[in-house]
Amino acid sequence: MDNQFTTEIANNLFTINNLWMMIATALVFLMHLGFATLETGLVQSKNTINILFKNSIIPAIGLVTHAIIGFSLMYPAESYLGGIIGFSGFGIGTDAAGVTDSYNIGYTYWTDFLFQGMFAATAATIVSGAVAERIKLSSFLIFSTFFVAIIYPITGMWKWGGGFLDNLGFYDFAGSTLVHSVGGWGALTGVIFLGPRIGKYMKGRIYPIPGHNIPLAVIGVFLLWLGWFGFNGGSVLSADPGLVSLVLVTTSLAASAGAIGAMVTSWSYLKKPDLTMTLNGILAGLVGITAGADLMSPLSSIIIGLIAGVIVVFAVIIFDRIKIDDPVGAISVHLICGIFGTLAVGIFGEKAGLEQLFHQAVGILTIGAFVVSSTSVMWFVIKKTVGIRVSQEEEYIGLDIGEHAMEAYPYFEKVS
Amino acid sequence: MDNQFTTEIANNLFTINNLWMMIATALVFLMHLGFATLETGLVQSKNTINILFKNSIIPAIGLVTHAIIGFSLMYPAESYLGGIIGFSGFGIGTDAAGVTDSYNIGYTYWTDFLFQGMFAATAATIVSGAVAERIKLSSFLIFSTFFVAIIYPITGMWKWGGGFLDNLGFYDFAGSTLVHSVGGWGALTGVIFLGPRIGKYMKGRIYPIPGHNIPLAVIGVFLLWLGWFGFNGGSVLSADPGLVSLVLVTTSLAASAGAIGAMVTSWSYLKKPDLTMTLNGILAGLVGITAGADLMSPLSSIIIGLIAGVIVVFAVIIFDRIKIDDPVGAISVHLICGIFGTLAVGIFGEKAGLEQLFHQAVGILTIGAFVVSSTSVMWFVIKKTVGIRVSQEEEYIGLDIGEHAMEAYPYFEKVS
Amino acid sequence: MDNQFTTEIANNLFTINNLWMMIATALVFLMHLGFATLETGLVQSKNTINILFKNSIIPAIGLVTHAIIGFSLMYPAESYLGGIIGFSGFGIGTDAAGVTDSYNIGYTYWTDFLFQGMFAATAATIVSGAVAERIKLSSFLIFSTFFVAIIYPITGMWKWGGGFLDNLGFYDFAGSTLVHSVGGWGALTGVIFLGPRIGKYMKGRIYPIPGHNIPLAVIGVFLLWLGWFGFNGGSVLSADPGLVSLVLVTTSLAASAGAIGAMVTSWSYLKKPDLTMTLNGILAGLVGITAGADLMSPLSSIIIGLIAGVIVVFAVIIFDRIKIDDPVGAISVHLICGIFGTLAVGIFGEKAGLEQLFHQAVGILTIGAFVVSSTSVMWFVIKKTVGIRVSQEEEYIGLDIGEHAMEAYPYFEKVS
Repeated sequence: MDNQFTTEIANNLFTINNLWMMIATALVFLMHLGFATLETGLVQSKNTINILFKNSIIPAIGLVTHAIIGFSLMYPAESYLGGIIGFSGFGIGTDAAGVTDSYNIGYTYWTDFLFQGMFAATAATIVSGAVAERIKLSSFLIFSTFFVAIIYPITGMWKWGGGFLDNLGFYDFAGSTLVHSVGGWGALTGVIFLGPRIGKYMKGRIYPIPGHNIPLAVIGVFLLWLGWFGFNGGSVLSADPGLVSLVLVTTSLAASAGAIGAMVTSWSYLKKPDLTMTLNGILAGLVGITAGADLMSPLSSIIIGLIAGVIVVFAVIIFDRIKIDDPVGAISVHLICGIFGTLAVGIFGEKAGLEQLFHQAVGILTIGAFVVSSTSVMWFVIKKTVGIRVSQEEEYIGLDIGEHAMEAYPYFEKVS
Repeated sequence: MDNQFTTEIANNLFTINNLWMMIATALVFLMHLGFATLETGLVQSKNTINILFKNSIIPAIGLVTHAIIGFSLMYPAESYLGGIIGFSGFGIGTDAAGVTDSYNIGYTYWTDFLFQGMFAATAATIVSGAVAERIKLSSFLIFSTFFVAIIYPITGMWKWGGGFLDNLGFYDFAGSTLVHSVGGWGALTGVIFLGPRIGKYMKGRIYPIPGHNIPLAVIGVFLLWLGWFGFNGGSVLSADPGLVSLVLVTTSLAASAGAIGAMVTSWSYLKKPDLTMTLNGILAGLVGITAGADLMSPLSSIIIGLIAGVIVVFAVIIFDRIKIDDPVGAISVHLICGIFGTLAVGIFGEKAGLEQLFHQAVGILTIGAFVVSSTSVMWFVIKKTVGIRVSQEEEYIGLDIGEHAMEAYPYFEKVS
Repeated sequence: MDNQFTTEIANNLFTINNLWMMIATALVFLMHLGFATLETGLVQSKNTINILFKNSIIPAIGLVTHAIIGFSLMYPAESYLGGIIGFSGFGIGTDAAGVTDSYNIGYTYWTDFLFQGMFAATAATIVSGAVAERIKLSSFLIFSTFFVAIIYPITGMWKWGGGFLDNLGFYDFAGSTLVHSVGGWGALTGVIFLGPRIGKYMKGRIYPIPGHNIPLAVIGVFLLWLGWFGFNGGSVLSADPGLVSLVLVTTSLAASAGAIGAMVTSWSYLKKPDLTMTLNGILAGLVGITAGADLMSPLSSIIIGLIAGVIVVFAVIIFDRIKIDDPVGAISVHLICGIFGTLAVGIFGEKAGLEQLFHQAVGILTIGAFVVSSTSVMWFVIKKTVGIRVSQEEEYIGLDIGEHAMEAYPYFEKVS
């Protein structure tokens, strides 16, 4: 009887843990709608269908390729070359143990796959916004497919799959580097290969190209914040009450402080309380806390959020000055604040210390080097074969008509 | 002491199961917002208030009528006439056992009622989009009230309430037939009784009438996908880790494959990557997997999704050719893919086999026959009494002004 | 061994309870997006950025101030002056016990803080809509900061923090008074100090100023309904299957009945099925059930919802007649229906009775008196120092340009 109690109690705990992980999966899924609405809101109305199309198909491509190859690359049974690469074969499938706590006490094999698949797809979605309004749809789809299926899981394995960065002591709780900076580097190389939108930088001046539907952007940011409950909270990998609830608190306080930091910065520096900057501040705080959300006190998470909120405002301004044209600020949010958040693990909280800071820098640099070089090769090959950018004429009339022969708002008069 | 442990362990499991079912209920509730935004995005701007009104009031009518009569018709204590009809009396109410696992190990009586009520209302919401832009509001409300309160629970009882189809071996895990095809048949008869919108088919040509706000449609599809986590995942009727997580995987892979199938089909056949078709592909995959989401391997669910994604594109095209005017593609998605998904149980997965395929066909046909005949009577009676269609003039100026004396976007210039 | 089982079983239950409370927290967070989209949809397009800004920054300010002072004011270790005020010191922090069931069997300290912080911020969001389209941003932010950090937690303590109203027998399950009427009183005094929008009341006539994007308003109402699953369901403070599921049923039936009540009332009285009124009916039902959601039968909750749905229509009409200009109907929904819902505890359900009705009236009046007087002082001081209202010119051109130098929809032609 005792033995039966032990089993039943463990089964109950497994069921609770798995339930939370499934809900976290659903929340990370919702981030795709968050990215879709955020990015759509921040582009011009004539490119609405195009960005919606990209962000609608990415989760689909992400999940299917994760089932075929990504999950196997990221969590291989064993890895080679000192933890640089591993592969467990194509496809997914489970034996009976996969749905018990002998697979993992926190989740079933199926939950694991789906949670990780939702994560993988977010990396590609980050790129989508930065390259918006001038990239060819087919080129973007080719890039994204390889990016989500191959590049993201390889670098992910380095830490979360037990690879060499994990052995070195690099820490990245929920992916400031593994997800956000990976997406951010891919976005940066994409923007460099593409060049800026026509009319953005002319005769030494910067011409703002405002977003077309700001309520959509706000919807996106709120959904992303909500999704981060699953993104960070699910990265506990169980429903542990103390740890998950701490993570939700640090995550939400960092988001809040990021909003306040960006509001105050933009109000002081730009003389206006800038909504887009404040929204980016929320995201900056979220990305900034992600690497160490389980390590920080409330106070530290507020400080991290505030700094991230300040950083993102200046990052957006500086990227514009150096003519890196990122319509939605994705590189500032995900790359710059991803780097900051990763370093913050060595500066604040339980693991703070010079040695840890060094480990963090190593992780940032090796992953950065790999993603920059591999995506540059990809963008180069794509540019030389199918081409990377729509024609100048198509850019003028918009990608909605050019790529999709469809309008997002056909009954409304546009400003000519 | 042992006995106390047994009880407490069982209570904990009951609490976990019920928690998941309540969350699944919330997710199915969110599908109503998904339908509202999807259908709104796909109609003309002048009919926005009208469709929002319908989709806002349907859940309300659905829940109240489910409390008064629907729940009792669908899950009667016993049924008569060989399992064709049953009724446990008007109203809901519970004794003390209803909140313990002696009612059901997966949920309380209250959770059961609310989960089922949310399901019931979705059937009516499916009809809403197909008959949009020309149906009289009062007629639609009369139809929907009877549809959700009487017709849906009667056919639902045939399988889920232990009726004759359940005894015959018909299988429908989460409602490809019981929910989606039921809604789809109601939509089909409605469209036939109503006729097409003015200007849709003229002189042998088909004139496309595009949707007015495509970001809304994308929001809708994502919310529906999310809601399906509860729709299919909740249909496990407990938080069983292995089964629920498998269902979420098959559901998401089918949705993903549906998107890819519809994208490729529309890109090849229509020469453009069609966003609306791709969105319908997601829904097609979701409807297609619903009948057998608990029976399929990841590979089978991808195949089912792909096929559904191809089917839905051609279904939309064919319905247009035969002048069945369905502004949102609801009949293609819910009826055609609902039928396909139900048959797929006999073709793929654990229950595949000719005998099962026959059972599936019997279920499809009997339910189809009942819904077509009963809704035809309803539409006929409504047409002959209050009338079914708004005046030609009202259709031109739009139902927002005609039915509600209100505009959805009063500050924006419309294309004249 | 027995002792170990006891502990593990209790730990499992604690984990389940805490999981539900974290999910409820996420749902209440989502209400902020609900308020943001609802209020945005109901204002003019030229004030879109401004209201989005306010509703985006309020949760941030709410959470940070709740961490600094609010949580400590609301749930002090002990209170003074007969339960009128208490304070446990600045900042939050926990010892090891805070993450075990020795803190509370339903949740950790972190979960408690975050759940309560999300609640606190909703009170300020209620004000936001009522004072929209003419309040200075800086003034609103000053008000909101004090309102959410000081006023809300003080009155909240009176009941939920064990203060004098709790001792008196006042009952308010989830905050018809403590949240909704508090927000509503703050909104009412704000509107009185501000005065109506220019052009709203002229020469004895009322000029309707319609909302600019009604789909956004519908999204808001659905998200609020969904969020209420966490607002009321989380107020059980555990995952108790019977009680939480009952609360979800009463909440949803009241919302549904509120919609029907408002639809029928507006259709009969205004001769048109008014969408905005019907949406307000949903919210009215939700606010109305909130004080007694755990005490009501399904039938009682339907009756409460119906009454609230009728009340809200006439409240909106009457406030307009007496020139209380509330662009979104917040005072009617949150104050009037909050009062009604609080009184309903003494009229319907388990606690019905004259004595309880008296307790309810005492709670309403003391809280109303405190909030009206304290917010009046605040509004007065703000008016005399930084000023409360934008210039007439800014009101004409809109607060988006005036306060933020930004447009929400720059590519769309506006009606001039």
